[in-house]
Amino acid sequence: VDKPVIRVGIIGAGFVGSALVQLLIDSSRHTALLDAATGPIELVGVAVRDGAKPRPGVPAGLVTTDAEALSNRQDLDVLVELAGGIEPARTHIESALRHGVSVVTANKALMAESGTALAQLAHEHGADLFYEAAVGGGIPILRALRSSLAGERINRVMGIVNGTTNFILSKMTSEGSDYAVALAEAQALGYAETDPTADVEAYDAAAKVQILSSLAFGTELVGEEISREGITRVRSIDVEFARRAGYVIKLLGVAERVGESGISRRVHPAMVPVEHPLASVHGAMNAVFVEGVRSGPLMWLGQGAGGEPTATAVLGDVLDAVRNRVSGRHDVPFTVDDTLHSVPAGDLSSVFYISIDVLDQPGVLAAVAGVFGSNGVSIQSMEQSGFGDEARLSFLTHLAKTSDVEATVADLARLASVDSIGASIRVIDGGGE
Amino acid sequence: VDKPVIRVGIIGAGFVGSALVQLLIDSSRHTALLDAATGPIELVGVAVRDGAKPRPGVPAGLVTTDAEALSNRQDLDVLVELAGGIEPARTHIESALRHGVSVVTANKALMAESGTALAQLAHEHGADLFYEAAVGGGIPILRALRSSLAGERINRVMGIVNGTTNFILSKMTSEGSDYAVALAEAQALGYAETDPTADVEAYDAAAKVQILSSLAFGTELVGEEISREGITRVRSIDVEFARRAGYVIKLLGVAERVGESGISRRVHPAMVPVEHPLASVHGAMNAVFVEGVRSGPLMWLGQGAGGEPTATAVLGDVLDAVRNRVSGRHDVPFTVDDTLHSVPAGDLSSVFYISIDVLDQPGVLAAVAGVFGSNGVSIQSMEQSGFGDEARLSFLTHLAKTSDVEATVADLARLASVDSIGASIRVIDGGGE
Repeated sequence: VDKPVIRVGIIGAGFVGSALVQLLIDSSRHTALLDAATGPIELVGVAVRDGAKPRPGVPAGLVTTDAEALSNRQDLDVLVELAGGIEPARTHIESALRHGVSVVTANKALMAESGTALAQLAHEHGADLFYEAAVGGGIPILRALRSSLAGERINRVMGIVNGTTNFILSKMTSEGSDYAVALAEAQALGYAETDPTADVEAYDAAAKVQILSSLAFGTELVGEEISREGITRVRSIDVEFARRAGYVIKLLGVAERVGESGISRRVHPAMVPVEHPLASVHGAMNAVFVEGVRSGPLMWLGQGAGGEPTATAVLGDVLDAVRNRVSGRHDVPFTVDDTLHSVPAGDLSSVFYISIDVLDQPGVLAAVAGVFGSNGVSIQSMEQSGFGDEARLSFLTHLAKTSDVEATVADLARLASVDSIGASIRVIDGGGE
Repeated sequence: VDKPVIRVGIIGAGFVGSALVQLLIDSSRHTALLDAATGPIELVGVAVRDGAKPRPGVPAGLVTTDAEALSNRQDLDVLVELAGGIEPARTHIESALRHGVSVVTANKALMAESGTALAQLAHEHGADLFYEAAVGGGIPILRALRSSLAGERINRVMGIVNGTTNFILSKMTSEGSDYAVALAEAQALGYAETDPTADVEAYDAAAKVQILSSLAFGTELVGEEISREGITRVRSIDVEFARRAGYVIKLLGVAERVGESGISRRVHPAMVPVEHPLASVHGAMNAVFVEGVRSGPLMWLGQGAGGEPTATAVLGDVLDAVRNRVSGRHDVPFTVDDTLHSVPAGDLSSVFYISIDVLDQPGVLAAVAGVFGSNGVSIQSMEQSGFGDEARLSFLTHLAKTSDVEATVADLARLASVDSIGASIRVIDGGGE
């Protein structure tokens, strides 16, 4: 049977876009692609910002600087958006969807902000909207949530979804480096940006948590803020304390059910037991750990960034979109569950690790302990180490409400004898078998 | 739009079958299922061997003892085969496929033996043949290979695909137990059968490696024997040696490219570096580690057995088959690559660990070392420990051809001063970042 040719356009020819062009035009892979897509694919245009810049491997005849025209082509079947940012990416995606053109994107910021509206638009116009590469780079976690786990009730999703911060924390763990040293190394190696805010303050991870939550639970993607704590206050001493106690410090993105209809979404550093599968996710790797009612624990691990791994994920989406196109159907996007409500992070309880540098004076410990007590936070264990005129107090609490711990930290900061307060790090349970 | 009702029949109502029935008739999940399937599903029959046995949760009106009639029903859309074994399972599956009925099965033995023919039959009759639960229980690895990684060139797949042996090796590692003690515990807990041969001699893992290889590389599923070594000769002393050297012993199923068109498929115990993601797969968990040219390393982890996890995987397949049915299409089954040839395990090289118990007499070490040398196996390090009249010699070789190591072991067994020879355990490289 002769299948119609499926026309694909790409916006963006950076690392991911160039790698995708290679994958699509690689003649040695042609038959495999044809099989997977169940029809021939034609790359009809690659829109770039700077038309003068040389693009090795991208056929010159395909390069255009007019992304708007490309996204408005009536004969297009699939538009791949890899330029990033909110605008003009959103406009291009909306134009394509309105023409019934399926869209594949890696744009996590845009999806976290406008995913619900875009998915609705896609569905109305009989088009697909896929964004596998927006979370976990080359890890095919979104398709698994959409498809393999479609019939499953998921209780919790926990992920190491930012490679930069995991690289920094891994360096601090394996080499005892301070945060600043590990950050500088990550920057030197190209894992961290000159301005690392999006990574180290967990904005990037928060967008990914929103996307994971929408597919796991049906929460909306409408740009809502979620609770977010980065890694800038994690110190080498904390990492060392964790190691001695049998834990590894990781930046975790968490989305979980709370009670019948509550959903908590948050990003924060956490102490993960060494035997937990997430503890062995090293360097710039990403992983997503899913707990389903019937499936039990599941974990996906892989490279969370990089042109080629990400391009592989994008290609998987393109092939899915093409297959749907050939058979004249589209997937139902994620379903929003209206009965869900967001549970503030402050309402949840956890065991916390907190370390405080204090002046080594009589009465200080009593004052500090008093602050914990007056906020209703019960102490499980305390460790004191002295250095010069100061002492470091490291506390593990019993199960405590997050808002009570936050109040404790605020009160501690007002004590004259307290010099500095480290990160409040949640201790998570074991898991995995 | 009114969608046609999709009729599903199930053969087998054991742990997996009963759990699947629950999932399909659970009214609280009805809407989610409807969304995922894009149409209503009706369960029309559950075939069992013993009609008199009570089946809690399975509606009595659906139970039948006539699996043949169920698989021949003209109005069936999807047949789920969960009875296992080669016959009559194959006959039932063939009947259904010949009627154009899509088939979902968890039958790894049958797929390893006849998968190529069954996939061909499915394709000819426009039906789907899905078998996600045949490998890794609840882990959705097969769909990922079929779909997300469809455009990727995979170099190697390495899996811990048998929960029983991983439970036994984990016990030996965490508690220093001997093999026999750990096996008895696995049997007491229901992780191992009374006759554990299929697990401990790696027949089960070998069938799964064949299935993984067919999807990763396009090798045929025609009942071919692959190289297979179990865990019965792994001793607690080997586990302890591995620990001190920074390794964990795991039973690995491996399928990998060798050169341009060679594929090696094998199962054997291996020393895995503690920092490798596979090293942290504990207890009865399963994991599959995939190395793609562009995706880089990827790993899937989850419960490899159990009624509910496996039923979740089966349900994912059923939903896929139903969706295809609703839109009148079927997936292209795996493509066989005729240019591939099987590379014998003996031709591959590896670093090996071998430990030997010898009589503690003058000249023994020289004799043993001479056997290594005459077989062209070069020694990297040796460790001797004495106990009573005997001594244990633990060797790590340099990179050595497997057939040379096998010849060495055979020659060593002929030395009068050699009392016993432990498992030859391959040492694998790090990986994961």
